[in-house]
Amino acid sequence: MPTPNAKLEPPRLGEPYLLTPGPLTTSYAVKEAMLRDWGSWDDDFRGMTLEIRTRLLDLLGDGKDDFDCVPMQGSGSFSVEAMLASFIPRDGKALVLANGAYGMRSAQTLDYLGRANVVLNKGDYLPPRGDEVAQILADDPAITHVVAIHCETSSGILNPVEEISEVVYAAGRKLLIDSMSAFGAIELKCADIRYEAMVSSANKCIEGVPGFGFIIARKAELEAAKGNSHSLSLDVHAQWAHMNKTGQWRFTPPTHVVAAFLVALRAHMDEGGVAGRGGRYTRNRDVMVAGMRELGFETLLKDRWLSPIIVTFFCPSDEHFVFDDFYEKMKNKGFIIYPGKLTVVDSFRVGCIGQMDEHVMLQVVAAAKETLEEMGVANAAPPAIALEERAKLAA
Amino acid sequence: MPTPNAKLEPPRLGEPYLLTPGPLTTSYAVKEAMLRDWGSWDDDFRGMTLEIRTRLLDLLGDGKDDFDCVPMQGSGSFSVEAMLASFIPRDGKALVLANGAYGMRSAQTLDYLGRANVVLNKGDYLPPRGDEVAQILADDPAITHVVAIHCETSSGILNPVEEISEVVYAAGRKLLIDSMSAFGAIELKCADIRYEAMVSSANKCIEGVPGFGFIIARKAELEAAKGNSHSLSLDVHAQWAHMNKTGQWRFTPPTHVVAAFLVALRAHMDEGGVAGRGGRYTRNRDVMVAGMRELGFETLLKDRWLSPIIVTFFCPSDEHFVFDDFYEKMKNKGFIIYPGKLTVVDSFRVGCIGQMDEHVMLQVVAAAKETLEEMGVANAAPPAIALEERAKLAA
Ligand SMILES: Cc1ncc(COP(=O)(O)O)c(C=O)c1O
Ligand SMILES: Cc1ncc(COP(=O)(O)O)c(C=O)c1O
Repeated sequence: MPTPNAKLEPPRLGEPYLLTPGPLTTSYAVKEAMLRDWGSWDDDFRGMTLEIRTRLLDLLGDGKDDFDCVPMQGSGSFSVEAMLASFIPRDGKALVLANGAYGMRSAQTLDYLGRANVVLNKGDYLPPRGDEVAQILADDPAITHVVAIHCETSSGILNPVEEISEVVYAAGRKLLIDSMSAFGAIELKCADIRYEAMVSSANKCIEGVPGFGFIIARKAELEAAKGNSHSLSLDVHAQWAHMNKTGQWRFTPPTHVVAAFLVALRAHMDEGGVAGRGGRYTRNRDVMVAGMRELGFETLLKDRWLSPIIVTFFCPSDEHFVFDDFYEKMKNKGFIIYPGKLTVVDSFRVGCIGQMDEHVMLQVVAAAKETLEEMGVANAAPPAIALEERAKLAA
Repeated sequence: MPTPNAKLEPPRLGEPYLLTPGPLTTSYAVKEAMLRDWGSWDDDFRGMTLEIRTRLLDLLGDGKDDFDCVPMQGSGSFSVEAMLASFIPRDGKALVLANGAYGMRSAQTLDYLGRANVVLNKGDYLPPRGDEVAQILADDPAITHVVAIHCETSSGILNPVEEISEVVYAAGRKLLIDSMSAFGAIELKCADIRYEAMVSSANKCIEGVPGFGFIIARKAELEAAKGNSHSLSLDVHAQWAHMNKTGQWRFTPPTHVVAAFLVALRAHMDEGGVAGRGGRYTRNRDVMVAGMRELGFETLLKDRWLSPIIVTFFCPSDEHFVFDDFYEKMKNKGFIIYPGKLTVVDSFRVGCIGQMDEHVMLQVVAAAKETLEEMGVANAAPPAIALEERAKLAA
């Protein structure tokens, strides 16, 4: 593995770091790749598309030959919708495992699609566990597919997808994974965990810029998907068949974003692939969380559930703490943080992904410390109810 | 109006000109705007989104206040699908006026959507005329909407949308326009032509890079669209309502592409808006067509129907002419042209849009001349059947 962070450089134009779950801070080389125009039907560009599909599949490791990769225009949600519509037949029924905004969005998408679905709604952050999923599947034989969120970005929890996969296949059902914010930093090797399809997007852990997503699915599922889609634009089978036949995207691809993504993917490999990338993010998280805890901040989640993607902190109970003010002051110091999404207690999030390393994370902590002082917040401890919340979670 | 082409510079990196209907050759300034990262929920980016929506609406002129602009992630086809699904109610019925690939794609989209539709299929290039549309509407009172293609890019024909609009509203129906390849270079002022909604995309006549499209629709239609969409991702009403409430896109926008588009839109205004942009493209076309005709090439269309967007030429009948060879040799000279889409006679297309002016078009003609010589094609005249084809068209 190369020396960690040997090549990381700060943003060139003085812009703030994006401590967010994407769009995130990308390398200058990634952005520079957008300084030319490509014809999307031309050989050169077709070669780029092929290289991207091949490199993404490589991340699956042994067994990858059973899968294929289908890039899809639009944001990540477009790819999620495309996956759900293409792989859940019209007479199928889905169980959605929700513990945050993205799980709920999948359920909402299924409602649009007119696909029968039930939701195991665990609230703001409690993880769906294997035994309860097994029980629901045993009770409802009509369920054909389970939809799981890998890292539920709205709290930052890393859901136990291996455990879920086991019970899903033990019950003879199929698993679809939204790995938007995890893929590329957390292993999803097809020899270790079974699933039919997963999605992610250009602007998460591969560190490209936003503009497309991709679906990685078993070839058998891709074949069977013909005719399932409700949408011409989002038809995964049609996109796949056309791409394999012509080397081209069906409709105009975001050429510049694709070019940037290819540079990002090569850098991902140079960093040591999923292990290298995930290692850097884990160091980012560890340094940042330790520093924030020293200031009195508390994480929503117990350590076991913390992802190396994004971390939720409770807002301090101190009356001098006003989030909008904290946000602006952090931004002026060069760090854009992210509002929280909890319903019970105020919170905010700090991302660990993008072109930054533990040195940057130390600066983030220093900026938070300074900001608290400016605001007159003596201690960043949350209200007692926040810790009661957290106590609900298994250690 | 500013001096024509005062600021046009050749592509910087030696890449070929894209003589295509998009992605096309964009200015360096447009691409340079992608050299930084934005947080999509941040104030700065929200301001950019608002400026884009406002500037696009400005192009409609007097009466624009009745309309609003809704950007949509994905390629242009995604926006077409979003428009059709959102504005044609589930119990509506559409008449699609098709004379090429994009008209047929709209019909196919309606089939996916489960919307009743009939197609007036005029074949490869004959224009749908007002009187025949009036007749169909008179014969079929169930038709609620007419879908027209402004410039049918597959032949380059500029369809008579004003004439069509008149008969549509005379019959009490509604018009939806796919102005993908025309908007920004050909007027679509709402005081001059009536329609409920239109779509275009970032990478056509505004000269941005690909990654999103936009729907411009009457506010009354946007209000009424609630609940019509088959798709969460492509729901125009939901995107509109969310954007007006929060200033943000519902799902992650292609931030870099948006930043580039804003620079492109400002340059569009500096060039004199639709009149200035359309004027340059018209000069491009006139110079290029005149030069190609001198070499013996013939256009598919009579002058009256030629758009300033893209022009179809018949392939020469000379046995030494092989299109793939012509394409490669033109590419090596710095010009990427575009294959044709006609079913009856072989053809190719040359685009007039993008960052180029009549001087570039003279070079294109010179390159074509040289290439013909290299190939040993003495005269570029098409087979007789080609001219018989063209004779079917009104002058
Ligand atoms: C887990 C998860 N799913 C879906 C999405 C939606 O992606 P997008 O915003 O690109 O539509 C996100 C975005 O952060 C995500 O984290
Ligand atoms: C008239 C027209 N409609 C629709 C489209 C589809 O746009 P996209 O390729 O961006 O999906 C195009 C593309 O050239 C077009 O010219």
